Amino acid sequence: MKILVLGGDGFCGWPTCLHLSAKGHEIIIVDNLSRRNIDNELEVSSLTPIKPMGTRLKTWKEATGREITFYNFNVAENYVQLLDLLKLYKPDAIVHFAEQRSAPYSMKSSYHKRYTVDNNLNATNSLLAAIVESGQNIHVVHLGTMGVYGYGTAGMKIPEGYLNVKVETDDGKLVDQEILYPVNPGSIYHMTKTQDQLLFAYYNKNDNIRVTDLHQGIVWGTQTEETKLDERLINRFDYDGDYGTVLNRFLMQSAIGYPLTVHGTGGQTRAFIHIQDTVRCIEIAITNPPSEGERVKIYNQMTETHRVRDLAKLVSEITNVPINYVPNPRQESDENELYVANDRFLEGGLEPITLRNGLLEEVADIAKKYMESCDKSKIPCVSFWNKDRSKASSQDESS
Amino acid sequence: MKILVLGGDGFCGWPTCLHLSAKGHEIIIVDNLSRRNIDNELEVSSLTPIKPMGTRLKTWKEATGREITFYNFNVAENYVQLLDLLKLYKPDAIVHFAEQRSAPYSMKSSYHKRYTVDNNLNATNSLLAAIVESGQNIHVVHLGTMGVYGYGTAGMKIPEGYLNVKVETDDGKLVDQEILYPVNPGSIYHMTKTQDQLLFAYYNKNDNIRVTDLHQGIVWGTQTEETKLDERLINRFDYDGDYGTVLNRFLMQSAIGYPLTVHGTGGQTRAFIHIQDTVRCIEIAITNPPSEGERVKIYNQMTETHRVRDLAKLVSEITNVPINYVPNPRQESDENELYVANDRFLEGGLEPITLRNGLLEEVADIAKKYMESCDKSKIPCVSFWNKDRSKASSQDESS
Repeated sequence: MKILVLGGDGFCGWPTCLHLSAKGHEIIIVDNLSRRNIDNELEVSSLTPIKPMGTRLKTWKEATGREITFYNFNVAENYVQLLDLLKLYKPDAIVHFAEQRSAPYSMKSSYHKRYTVDNNLNATNSLLAAIVESGQNIHVVHLGTMGVYGYGTAGMKIPEGYLNVKVETDDGKLVDQEILYPVNPGSIYHMTKTQDQLLFAYYNKNDNIRVTDLHQGIVWGTQTEETKLDERLINRFDYDGDYGTVLNRFLMQSAIGYPLTVHGTGGQTRAFIHIQDTVRCIEIAITNPPSEGERVKIYNQMTETHRVRDLAKLVSEITNVPINYVPNPRQESDENELYVANDRFLEGGLEPITLRNGLLEEVADIAKKYMESCDKSKIPCVSFWNKDRSKASSQDESS
Repeated sequence: MKILVLGGDGFCGWPTCLHLSAKGHEIIIVDNLSRRNIDNELEVSSLTPIKPMGTRLKTWKEATGREITFYNFNVAENYVQLLDLLKLYKPDAIVHFAEQRSAPYSMKSSYHKRYTVDNNLNATNSLLAAIVESGQNIHVVHLGTMGVYGYGTAGMKIPEGYLNVKVETDDGKLVDQEILYPVNPGSIYHMTKTQDQLLFAYYNKNDNIRVTDLHQGIVWGTQTEETKLDERLINRFDYDGDYGTVLNRFLMQSAIGYPLTVHGTGGQTRAFIHIQDTVRCIEIAITNPPSEGERVKIYNQMTETHRVRDLAKLVSEITNVPINYVPNPRQESDENELYVANDRFLEGGLEPITLRNGLLEEVADIAKKYMESCDKSKIPCVSFWNKDRSKASSQDESS
């Protein structure tokens, strides 16, 4: 298949491009390198050494003989360039990663809230409008988040996207309805993904655009089969307070012998998936598109759930580094349950990599190997969800 | 109270400013005159003669002795200017009309889809981010639309914003939940209002911003008590296919003896409210703000529902102009039911103006009085929701 990957330079985008290319698909990347520019803004960089796109693509060609094409522009802003590419390549599918993807980054300031909403919604809307205008029948595969879901009903697994409810009519009858799962996003970033869902539902209804939305858990791991082929193909490893996910922070902290910082009680339950499984899931989604006229197809792209404190204990067990509880910068409940249905990918043939099996490799091969590049001052999360969370944190420091 | 009105030059914004000013509130208008600029783009203008803002405000001062302040800038783009105004005036409430409000306009082309999403979401997000950054406790009153609601359950009144549902747990128990009413917007414009709802819910949850969201029906009528004081204060009357609502088109068509064009079977049921009731509702909303920590307060701002063909018959009865059925440019069902709860405003003291009582005045005092200014070629709606609707219409013309 011919596949356009928007945001193909990022943490999930890059290994996805290589995986799909290795599987024989023709890949065209569009990326404005915003993730690298944000590194400049935050004065931090990936722990692993990321090569320029030109080097990455040349290395991939040398290693496999396969060519990937690259365009550097902003999908949210340069509509005409995007439309021209659709006309030129007539892709079968477009994988849409072209969104700002960090919750703490989206909460840093008004600028960051505004950038995240502006970039993410205009990127998604421009893509959908361009597909309609092109008149082509292109399947959109979008990276959503588990964070779109509301807290969930006690005793109920979160289904894949849609929820059956009963509504009482004025004369007391109970009527069945299937609705998009009610949302309850935890940050401006997560909120943009709930707004994306409304864009997908609308264009699907009005213009029959075929969309698969992947509600992904927290991605861990760094390397995939393809990025391991040559060090110049290595994937990002973000350990900073904004882009480093909770697990990567723990790995980095344990590599340098720095107590693992758990926010609040660590009772937050999160969903996880390994980057290798992410790229496999995306290929499953691409090769199983919705049929003509089918509503938006939603998968839960995650393989296991853990409480943050249990995760910290697991890493602590493996590495002997102690745990340090600090005030939570996020506006959220201290404790939450999370049960998630992920039948679709398991039925699609996914055999998940588990945290218990993969973690040691991450500590040894990535965190320890590259620990010299770590800037310890960047590890703490200094993005506070609101003024109360900011105050609680500064009181803790002064106490 | 000190009230900032964003979008205070538009069809609902202008009479709202005068009404609130007449009630003794201090009014500061922010508007980038986008509605006047869109008139230029569409090569059409209000049937009634709209004066420049300077003349409007000078006339208001002459007529009532009251001063209104005006700033001309774009709320979606000029964040710093907006924040500075909040710091300077410390308003008690902000009424937010600063959105592109026409469904057909939002569907004209990719440009119009992109403009509507970009403008509406960035305006709302910038406003909320600015309130958080200002640290002030400001009540936001937003003009939403009845169009956010899904089709509704047969035999059930659409409640004000929230819906009680029952969810089945994995062991077969039914659990009660209250959720934001599931959305099903009919155009890109309506979709942006469903996305606005998610912004309000998020900032309300995270930052305790107090918000009232008014899900308004189709506004009819032109004048209010205040706009009648002097012809230079007159409100807009839009009769064109993009900004003219169904009723205004009928009034214009009947004034010039042009058969009333009904889209499809005319079986679509719509909710209506008179502009005089709109401005009263907004004052009720402002003077009854949500309490600290209260979730977003939602009102259905409408007073009656009618099927479009019944409306056409009503106007036809009054004016003796016949009805003409044409293909529907919109992607929607031919027939729908609509029952709506509007208890909150009735309890708040609203005494609705009914269509049956107010229509004749509109025909005589507005449509007939200014009919010389009408450009008949602008009456038909030439914005098609998708390629099938466009094709159906052109086949009809050629048959």
